[in-house]
This record gives sequence, C-alpha cells and structure tokens, in this order.
Amino acid sequence: MKSKTETLAEFAKNDLFARFIGIELLEISAGRALAKLEIKDSHLNGVGIAHGGAIFTLADLAFAAAANSYGDSTVAVAINVNVSYIKAAGKGTLYAEAVEISKSAKIGTYSAKITNEKGELIASFQGMGYRKSKKLQ
Amino acid sequence: MKSKTETLAEFAKNDLFARFIGIELLEISAGRALAKLEIKDSHLNGVGIAHGGAIFTLADLAFAAAANSYGDSTVAVAINVNVSYIKAAGKGTLYAEAVEISKSAKIGTYSAKITNEKGELIASFQGMGYRKSKKLQ
Amino acid sequence: MKSKTETLAEFAKNDLFARFIGIELLEISAGRALAKLEIKDSHLNGVGIAHGGAIFTLADLAFAAAANSYGDSTVAVAINVNVSYIKAAGKGTLYAEAVEISKSAKIGTYSAKITNEKGELIASFQGMGYRKSKKLQ
Amino acid sequence: MKSKTETLAEFAKNDLFARFIGIELLEISAGRALAKLEIKDSHLNGVGIAHGGAIFTLADLAFAAAANSYGDSTVAVAINVNVSYIKAAGKGTLYAEAVEISKSAKIGTYSAKITNEKGELIASFQGMGYRKSKKLQ
Repeated sequence: MKSKTETLAEFAKNDLFARFIGIELLEISAGRALAKLEIKDSHLNGVGIAHGGAIFTLADLAFAAAANSYGDSTVAVAINVNVSYIKAAGKGTLYAEAVEISKSAKIGTYSAKITNEKGELIASFQGMGYRKSKKLQ
Repeated sequence: MKSKTETLAEFAKNDLFARFIGIELLEISAGRALAKLEIKDSHLNGVGIAHGGAIFTLADLAFAAAANSYGDSTVAVAINVNVSYIKAAGKGTLYAEAVEISKSAKIGTYSAKITNEKGELIASFQGMGYRKSKKLQ
Repeated sequence: MKSKTETLAEFAKNDLFARFIGIELLEISAGRALAKLEIKDSHLNGVGIAHGGAIFTLADLAFAAAANSYGDSTVAVAINVNVSYIKAAGKGTLYAEAVEISKSAKIGTYSAKITNEKGELIASFQGMGYRKSKKLQ
Repeated sequence: MKSKTETLAEFAKNDLFARFIGIELLEISAGRALAKLEIKDSHLNGVGIAHGGAIFTLADLAFAAAANSYGDSTVAVAINVNVSYIKAAGKGTLYAEAVEISKSAKIGTYSAKITNEKGELIASFQGMGYRKSKKLQ
C-alpha cells in the first residue's frame, strides 16, 4: 500500500499541465485537497492580473485530487465546472482548497475556494465529476 | 488607428499566460474571436487527456478577445464562467470560437464552443464579463 | 405507437409543476423542444419583473422535453443547470427553445434560449442531464 | 424604521411567484436568509419527484432575500445562477439557506444549500447578483 506522501507525489507528477504551470499539491485526504500556485509574470493576463485560466487550473487540480482521493479503482473526470471570480489577484501565492459536497456511485460534487496569502477570497469554484470504472494512470 | 492585425498581435502578446501555454489568437472581430491550441504532452492531465484547465484557458482567451473586441475605452473582466466537458481530447489541435450573446453597458454574455480538428465538440463554455471604465493595457 | 401529439400532451400533463405554473409545451422533436409561458401577475418577483424561477422552470421544461424526446426506455434527469439572466421581462409571452448540444450513453448537454414576443433574448440556459435506465412515468 | 418581522413579511409578500408556489421566508439577517417549501403534488415533475424549478425558486428566494438583506437604497438582481442537483426529493419539506460569499459595490456572490427535513443535501446553488441603484419595491 502506498503512503500518503507517495500518493501525493504521484498524483502531482502525473498531471503534466499542472506541473508545467507550477501548481503544487500540498495536501490530500478523503474528499479534500489543498493546492498552491505562486503567481508569476507568466500567469498574468492582458490586464496584468492573475489569469482566470491559471486560477481555474489551480482549483481544478484541487478538485481532481479531492475527487480521486479514495484510491479505489475508478477515476473521476470533470463534466461541469462553474467559477465566480470575486477579486483580482496580482503576483503572490494563491491557494485552492476543494471539499466534497456529495458523492454517489457515479457523480460527485465538489466546491473549492481560491484564496490569496491574506486569506481573501479570489474565486469560488463548483465542479461535478463523473466516475468511470477505469484506473487512474 | 491600429490595423486589425496589430490589434490581434497586441492582444495575444499582452496575455502572458495564454502565450506561456501556447495559445494563438487567430481571428477577432466585433463580438467574436477564434483561438487555437496545439495539445502537447505539457497540456495533458493525470489521465492522459487534454487538461480541463488548458481547454478552459483556450476558451477564456477567445472569450476575453471577443469581449474586448470593440476597441473602446473600457475593459471587460470575467465574473462568471461555466464549462461543460463533452468529449475527451488527446493530442492534436483544439479551437475555441467565442461569440457574443448579449451586451449591455456593464455586462456581456459570451458563449464558446471548443472543437477538435475533426470539428467534434469537446467542451461548451459560457462566460459573463463585467465592463470597467479602464483602458485595456 | 403514440402520435407526436399524444406524446406532447402526455409529457406536459405529467409535469404537474409546469402545469401548475401555466407552461405549455408547443413542440417536441428529436433533441429539441419549444415551450411557452404567459407571464402574469403570479409570475412576478419583488421587483415587479418576471421571476427568475419562472424563467428557469420554463427553460427547464423545454430542456427536459428535449432530453427525453427520443422515447426510449431511459429517463434523463437534470444534474447541473447554469442560467445567465440577460434582460428583465415584464408581463407578456416568453418562449424557451432547447436544443441538444451533445449526447452520450449517460450524459446529455442542452442549451436553451429564453426570448420574449419581440424575439429579444431574456436569458440563456445550459443544462446537463444524466440518463437513468428507468422508464419515464 | 421597520422591524425585522415587518421586513420579512413585506419581502415575502412582494414576491408574487414565491407566494404563488407556497414558499415561506423564515429568517433574514445581514447576508443570510432561510426559506422553506412544503413539496406537494403540484411541485412534482414528470418523474414524480420535486421539480428542479421548484427547488430552484426556493433557493432563488433565499438568495434574493440574502442579497437584499441590508435594507439600503439599492436592489440586487440575479445575473447568473448555477445549480447542481444532488439527490431526488419526494413530498415533504425542503429548506434553502443562502449565505453571502462576497459583496462589492456592484456584485455579490451567494451560495445556497437546499436540504430536506432529514438534513440531506438535495441541491447546491450558487448565484451572482448585480446591484442597481433603485429601491426595492
């Protein structure tokens, strides 16, 4: 059986896009995950603030980790995501914490809050995952 | 007055995150934009398909370009986005075309379809932008 | 085999809430449906305009009809809905037309436009349905 | 100055559609509201469960009450709503509790949970309101 640290390391390593962007998975437990992204120049949009796509991807990784936190022989893929952007974020650290709202055999609902280092809410994310009977790679 | 090609080049250049990921803005006209992303290894998620965050960012750039296509002295920022993921996409080319659904003084609504090179629908995106009286940088 | 008129009548009759509110199903065909609601005093909100819930329910009936338009032995239930409210509507007639965006064995995505009698867009609706192997009552 | 009970009574009375359906506003305080709906035959859909539109309208009233809970000279109208349906509900009592997630001069974000009498989560609702400088009627 894998240790929690191994699971974390593997999950983060396998997500090439999250790794490319610089997202770090900090914590994972049953139905919950916490991720982090250091906002640098390469994460800014045309208005000079953290890009909606970077914020989305951060929350999406936390969502995916929470949805796949049980280590069983299924994999949950996102089918719908809704994001509300609350406050612009500049350079600095952003965190996304995803928690499970509901889970049935096939469908799980997750909510994530994206906050900055002062704990201010930057965006609110809600995602639905669909569980397939295929092992996570 | 800037030519359309200059506007295109500038918009794409200013969005550092879209540039970092490899998104290209192909077309922009009043209330409409088309963008493209070549899906490579760095855009894949832990299940080996195009990452939801990469697809989102592609659609988001098309949305931002369409919302800021009028060249007036305001800038539209996303306040809410909803994405439905329809079909998994592997490596290859993805396109996002955003069109304006409505536009008032303050709020605009945009819809984007993300398709692969066969024209198959990969994801459906709906975004709301809020217009601020601040010039686009 | 039932005629199209019988299917329509039955679908509308079985939806007690839609009937209670006064929604009429006008058309149904494979992956598409059109419904209508006469906005009266009882459909207004505290600000004196058509209630978001009445507009939602109108679009939801069109969505449900389109999602269950194939007459097979399954029933599609809504799992996620996103609505953008574009323009306030007063008394008069509202229409919702739902069309299928995608359909797999389990999940279907539908988009609906809600318009007034002048053809102005009042709201834009996107819904996902999950197909269960249980007959529609 | 109006008492809290008067505010409650007035808000609920002015929302004709919520009244027509049978929704009761139970509590209202700064940025928070609780509403209730007794699910009867008239609230069911074609599959014999509580209609998505009835659940939506219940949450929408709680959202509107929370968004307009400050009693100032503005009125917040919904611009975007996202609902995830988690569990089917039959006849019985449903509750919706809306809480404020963020509030700026123009835009507020609210989240609502819809639960049954056993406290089970039936649906999860997220709404954005846009504040207009016009008094609530």
